[in-house]
Amino acid sequence: MQFDGRRRVVIEALSPSVDEGRFPAKRAAGDVVQIEADIFADGHDLLSAVMLHRHQSEKKLTEIRMEPLFNDRWRAELRADRLGFTFFTVEAWVDHFLTWHRDLRKRVDAGQSDIDVQLLIGLEMIRAAAARAKARDRKRLRRFVALLEGGEPAEEKVPELWSEELLDVMWRNADRALAVRYPCELAIEVDPPRAAFSSWYELFPRSFGGFRGVEAQLPRIARMGFDVLYLPPIHPIGTTFRKGRNNAVSAREGDVGSPWAIGGDGGGHTAVHPDLGTLDDFRALVERARSHGIELALDIAFQASPDHPYVAEHPDWFQTRPDGTIQYAENPPKKYQDIYPFHFESEAWKGLWEELRDVFRHWIAQGVRVFRVDNPHTKPLPFWQWVIREIKNDHPDVIFLAEAFTRPKIMYWLAKAGFSQSYTYFSWRNTSDELRDYFEEIAAPPVSDFFRPNAWPNTPDILTEYLQFGGRAAFTVRLILAATLSANYGVYGPAFERFVAEPREAGSEEYRDSEKYEARQWGESDDDLSEMMTVINRIRRENPALQQNATLQFHPTDNPELVCYSKSVGSNVIVCVVNLDPHNTQSGTIDLQLELTYPFQVHDLLSGRRFTWHSGRNVIELNPRIVPAHIFRIRRKVRSERDFEYFL
Amino acid sequence: MQFDGRRRVVIEALSPSVDEGRFPAKRAAGDVVQIEADIFADGHDLLSAVMLHRHQSEKKLTEIRMEPLFNDRWRAELRADRLGFTFFTVEAWVDHFLTWHRDLRKRVDAGQSDIDVQLLIGLEMIRAAAARAKARDRKRLRRFVALLEGGEPAEEKVPELWSEELLDVMWRNADRALAVRYPCELAIEVDPPRAAFSSWYELFPRSFGGFRGVEAQLPRIARMGFDVLYLPPIHPIGTTFRKGRNNAVSAREGDVGSPWAIGGDGGGHTAVHPDLGTLDDFRALVERARSHGIELALDIAFQASPDHPYVAEHPDWFQTRPDGTIQYAENPPKKYQDIYPFHFESEAWKGLWEELRDVFRHWIAQGVRVFRVDNPHTKPLPFWQWVIREIKNDHPDVIFLAEAFTRPKIMYWLAKAGFSQSYTYFSWRNTSDELRDYFEEIAAPPVSDFFRPNAWPNTPDILTEYLQFGGRAAFTVRLILAATLSANYGVYGPAFERFVAEPREAGSEEYRDSEKYEARQWGESDDDLSEMMTVINRIRRENPALQQNATLQFHPTDNPELVCYSKSVGSNVIVCVVNLDPHNTQSGTIDLQLELTYPFQVHDLLSGRRFTWHSGRNVIELNPRIVPAHIFRIRRKVRSERDFEYFL
Repeated sequence: MQFDGRRRVVIEALSPSVDEGRFPAKRAAGDVVQIEADIFADGHDLLSAVMLHRHQSEKKLTEIRMEPLFNDRWRAELRADRLGFTFFTVEAWVDHFLTWHRDLRKRVDAGQSDIDVQLLIGLEMIRAAAARAKARDRKRLRRFVALLEGGEPAEEKVPELWSEELLDVMWRNADRALAVRYPCELAIEVDPPRAAFSSWYELFPRSFGGFRGVEAQLPRIARMGFDVLYLPPIHPIGTTFRKGRNNAVSAREGDVGSPWAIGGDGGGHTAVHPDLGTLDDFRALVERARSHGIELALDIAFQASPDHPYVAEHPDWFQTRPDGTIQYAENPPKKYQDIYPFHFESEAWKGLWEELRDVFRHWIAQGVRVFRVDNPHTKPLPFWQWVIREIKNDHPDVIFLAEAFTRPKIMYWLAKAGFSQSYTYFSWRNTSDELRDYFEEIAAPPVSDFFRPNAWPNTPDILTEYLQFGGRAAFTVRLILAATLSANYGVYGPAFERFVAEPREAGSEEYRDSEKYEARQWGESDDDLSEMMTVINRIRRENPALQQNATLQFHPTDNPELVCYSKSVGSNVIVCVVNLDPHNTQSGTIDLQLELTYPFQVHDLLSGRRFTWHSGRNVIELNPRIVPAHIFRIRRKVRSERDFEYFL
Repeated sequence: MQFDGRRRVVIEALSPSVDEGRFPAKRAAGDVVQIEADIFADGHDLLSAVMLHRHQSEKKLTEIRMEPLFNDRWRAELRADRLGFTFFTVEAWVDHFLTWHRDLRKRVDAGQSDIDVQLLIGLEMIRAAAARAKARDRKRLRRFVALLEGGEPAEEKVPELWSEELLDVMWRNADRALAVRYPCELAIEVDPPRAAFSSWYELFPRSFGGFRGVEAQLPRIARMGFDVLYLPPIHPIGTTFRKGRNNAVSAREGDVGSPWAIGGDGGGHTAVHPDLGTLDDFRALVERARSHGIELALDIAFQASPDHPYVAEHPDWFQTRPDGTIQYAENPPKKYQDIYPFHFESEAWKGLWEELRDVFRHWIAQGVRVFRVDNPHTKPLPFWQWVIREIKNDHPDVIFLAEAFTRPKIMYWLAKAGFSQSYTYFSWRNTSDELRDYFEEIAAPPVSDFFRPNAWPNTPDILTEYLQFGGRAAFTVRLILAATLSANYGVYGPAFERFVAEPREAGSEEYRDSEKYEARQWGESDDDLSEMMTVINRIRRENPALQQNATLQFHPTDNPELVCYSKSVGSNVIVCVVNLDPHNTQSGTIDLQLELTYPFQVHDLLSGRRFTWHSGRNVIELNPRIVPAHIFRIRRKVRSERDFEYFL
């Protein structure tokens, strides 16, 4: 757009925007996106504005009229219905006709009679619009031209001008010669709904006899309500410097090694460990899982065991030391000789990048649509931005979960660069203050526009102190917190539902006899957390409020051991109160600062009990030996014309 | 910079930044600017970073090493010493040598003896640096190469490697082949110190007999401590539709008209009203004021009376209506027939813009360096961005004050577009909550990076309700608030110091017998506010804390009629407590939440009294009939080795 000093409108602060449009804002299919901008100009003239949008597959922009809100903020709504990128921008102009129309009304209302010149000014604008308009609009406009050209006195013409039709047709044919367009298009990336709302279950397939054994677990996992089943790496495992049970430096005969020491005789990142089954078995598992409503998530760990085929085939993808040996992983003074990191500063980086991209493509070809990426923060950040884009260009339905437990800005940047979901610090946020501070940060813009938390109470690497010492109640508390604070959550399953809490040694977060280094037989159990998990997942499915984080709001309590928060979508309002103390009954007063009409009924979806609350302040008592939480659904009292009471 | 996947560093959130660099951040000459950025990369490698800067007159960038702060934030300091634009950016790289050096120390500390390969790796890096280095650095590096090539055992070589010299010379000759540069340069605009700290006094020269009469006022104004003297428009005044006294629709014989109805027989925006003197007299006034340390500020009001020479010479700069008449100013149903606004959507806009720019140039040629721009929000916003840039390119010492009392985003945008100072909503912020909310918003980034408040208790257009009903105490309160909350402040003088408080009619903010429409004789006065103004301005000059807003901090009080706030620069700490109730004595406890060493002495710069405070909580009582405020200077207690006590 050429510079023209007569373009008087300023458009600023277009949103959603991540770092001024350097990254897309994330949304899920079906979301309604509020597109907003500050739009203003000098003086008192009225403005008009349109939001323009197009899907990445389209060239032509579609317009939606924007409406002014307050304080020069304007809004239009965009339904995100197609996966991939949707681009949007804003155009606005000084609307001389609207201004004239408003002013004419003021003049008439003030009883001014000398409005002939004003009618001439309006006539000129309507004539010009008629010249721009086509077909029916032109005909409509000519009717108004004729009206104003006619010889009737002004007071007879004026009432005709108040017609909505005139405003509509003038708006459609507005003079936009001096319109201003926001200088760039911003992007929304629309992901599949599962990117925003998902329940993950992790298990080691070798503990269940491989892929066929996992197939046998599917009905149970589906019954519990999980919709993503995540498997640690399924590839051949190296033998050189193989780690033994409990991470022993040397493996003993029969030790199966860590699945993250990828690559051996049977192949590398595109192969399947023969003990787990065949590639056909794997594909069958993917399909069977899908028939249960479950997506299989594969672990992608970009590192090699010394026995990985890459080591011989592509020595230039590894760093060679002056003594000719290959650089193994180190965090001085610690050495990890069973792992060779890729050398991303290699001259051969392009070939390496393409090969790693093709690893994703290989598994996509086997039907996988969800990837959990191991330690992405130890590979170059620009690589992730490139490879996720490469994959999503062809497969916008693919979901990437970043397993980055690292410094906050790196975690955030990985999310900006394209990861659909991210592991979080949730595992170590235990007090009500810690939970509130953290979730208030990640559930609201700017962070929530690019970072989707996936909250895990445990992982094969993380057995928190809270779980080690809190017993059954601790597991229940952390399950409920993860599943209600975050729309995406997951558990490292068998160990979680069986309350496994023994660390390798005091002060460690590693599991004793960790499945990372050995296969375990889980067998049957009479008493585990699966019942509660089933209930929680059903509550999540039935309540849209829990399928998003944007409306998360914390509410004051007078006992720091009680945390209270709510989420709502439309009329679906969920209030959670959790006793964070796994050892003692705690009671206190919560103060719901929600705009609700009192009294209303609260329905505890865990116990089934119902209470009537007459104000936002209510006393709560929670015994962790029974259930350490309430998950209340608010049911508003509605009076019919006959004064019966209903709860909706 | 060509895309290279091996460039692993990410640089984000470079600051100061106004709207991601679309506008410069404002600073004053002499300021030390904290340049910061988020800088990080994958993995555990150490990074190095430099901030690069250049004045607009330079092409070559100068480097300053950045230091890491916390949470991946890095900083370098830049002294803003030259007026105009300084551009800056950041470059960072993975520092393999620093990483190697840190890791070597960890290995040695852990007692690892197999470090020969490590020494070879270091040798390679030092050799490569020596090849890059010049002269003395090369010589220094070769010494280390020889050391590492030598046959001595590792444990003899290693201690030499801890030398600071090695780190220094390696840093200077670092391998920056894969360095990353922030994608653009951001700008700081350095203004003269008076843009950030100034005390304005406004008077109508015709009330003092013209320019020579104003000259006679200079010693008094200088004695009171003001350093900007602002005159409403000094041009010939139109006679057509001239407004009479008290804004009467028709002037009577002898009525002098409003100075803002610019243009008449004697000329327009570049002419001087003959009653005020000649252009020579004006130049003499500018010079004489400067000799008193006072800059003259001229009012620039871009509008014309019907008698302005432009109307005949450039009819295309005005809007012609269908009946051939020129469009006068209107805010329907109100009409302002004595004013013709310029038609900025004219085809001839370029000529109009250039003419208006030349008005500024004309007055700059007469010595003026400060302009108070009337109602900039009723002229196109892009015009201001252009014209201020045009002027400041040649005269970076010019200061523009925006008299825009309009919606917040437009006020802010004008500041972004280049205005050095801005009128504020201060005049209508009366309660402690209102003052705190407003000043917390404007005294901190992002707003403070582009918006410099200039706080006025009154103007010829604004006689607030608070002043109308509060008596002498109200004037004192508003003076002290303006002068201590905001580094820039001003008063419309004679009316202010004489406590003029009568509105034209009840409910109006207009002065009765306003100087806007008539000349007034102020004569001598026995009792006015000039003594207090003198004291306040001296306190401002003597205390650097009051010459800036960045450190403004509000402190709780338990009486909402008492507002408490502090400002500090280095050891200069000022605490103000103001009784906002002009009618009654108010008392309460303030809670200074400052990191101070107790006890300390507070010295009330208004009363001269001194108190020792043993904690941050102290009881205050202020009688508005005596003095409605304390302006405390904190004097820390310092013990010498002899245990005498001093207050510094």
